[in-house]
Amino acid sequence: MIHYPDGSEYKPTATKKTYNKKGSEANRGMNLEEAINQSNEYYRDNDICLITKRPTPINVVKVDYSHGARITDAYFEKESTTDYNGVYKGRYIDFETKNTKSKTSFPFSNIEDHQIDHLERVIHHGGIAFFIIEFQLLDQIYLLDASIIIDHYRNGPAKSIPLAEVKEKGLLLEQAFSPRIKYIDAVDKLYFGK
Amino acid sequence: MIHYPDGSEYKPTATKKTYNKKGSEANRGMNLEEAINQSNEYYRDNDICLITKRPTPINVVKVDYSHGARITDAYFEKESTTDYNGVYKGRYIDFETKNTKSKTSFPFSNIEDHQIDHLERVIHHGGIAFFIIEFQLLDQIYLLDASIIIDHYRNGPAKSIPLAEVKEKGLLLEQAFSPRIKYIDAVDKLYFGK
Repeated sequence: MIHYPDGSEYKPTATKKTYNKKGSEANRGMNLEEAINQSNEYYRDNDICLITKRPTPINVVKVDYSHGARITDAYFEKESTTDYNGVYKGRYIDFETKNTKSKTSFPFSNIEDHQIDHLERVIHHGGIAFFIIEFQLLDQIYLLDASIIIDHYRNGPAKSIPLAEVKEKGLLLEQAFSPRIKYIDAVDKLYFGK
Repeated sequence: MIHYPDGSEYKPTATKKTYNKKGSEANRGMNLEEAINQSNEYYRDNDICLITKRPTPINVVKVDYSHGARITDAYFEKESTTDYNGVYKGRYIDFETKNTKSKTSFPFSNIEDHQIDHLERVIHHGGIAFFIIEFQLLDQIYLLDASIIIDHYRNGPAKSIPLAEVKEKGLLLEQAFSPRIKYIDAVDKLYFGK
């Protein structure tokens, strides 16, 4: 049990905030992340697949053990991998979620070099790697194989991929109540030929 | 770049400490974890497999954005999964590392219910799940399929597994310079029939 310094019990509040490296980025991608998390719980509880979110890497500098273990000084580390990974039908699954306010293309400004390296390695080792991209102003979410993003990222011509190409090569994901985003249907189509 | 409140740049110290939920547990398992991390880097850089450590889940309560993003209040969340996962030859790999000072058995006191649930699900979905167990006072490290631990954990008779059974059903891991722990050799033998 976690206690505040005055001895009262810590109770997490009902609405969790997402903290990011930059204050201005707080809450970015929150809804997509929540929807994926809810979908993963549904998929787990219904024995469909087991995909989990990687915790945000945090470097802990100081811990106060006087009332439980309270972290009093820490900082966010650079993400070196992706948001989610897990197993579906024995295969390794690895993906990154991103969103954009653009209506015409998905810009790579938010993708890190080492995430591209990581996804390339996943593919090299026979894993399934993709992006889930939300076009927020269009209310459309696509699943796109990572190799397509990697190719554009490495070889250009632009630091973005046009929405038309995302539509052509990716799959539009069905949004529903539960699971909120039926992305495993798209995985079945793209990677298991269903 | 991270700064201290006085404006000076934060520089991580060369020797990192491991922080745990309980002060008394600090540094427990540190050497095994470092050895596995080093082995994973070796395996990654030599294109053998891609296995990463899941960051410790931390719930961030307060962030000070006045000098970079500094976490000033946070606490450790309960681990709901395992230490490591990744991909080898297309298959999903998931494992937990544990160590013990016992010379005769591996006690389950350090294993959480939800870790057992998680590993059971991994197996259900066709993933490869195991424990890497270090008997510190014997300087022996074994890889043992998770199903054997799960069976003992669920069905008894004891809250531990005898070393003799670990030796019989598991594989002793070779320790070397690089990779420090050649656990993929054991994965090859146990799961790929080599």
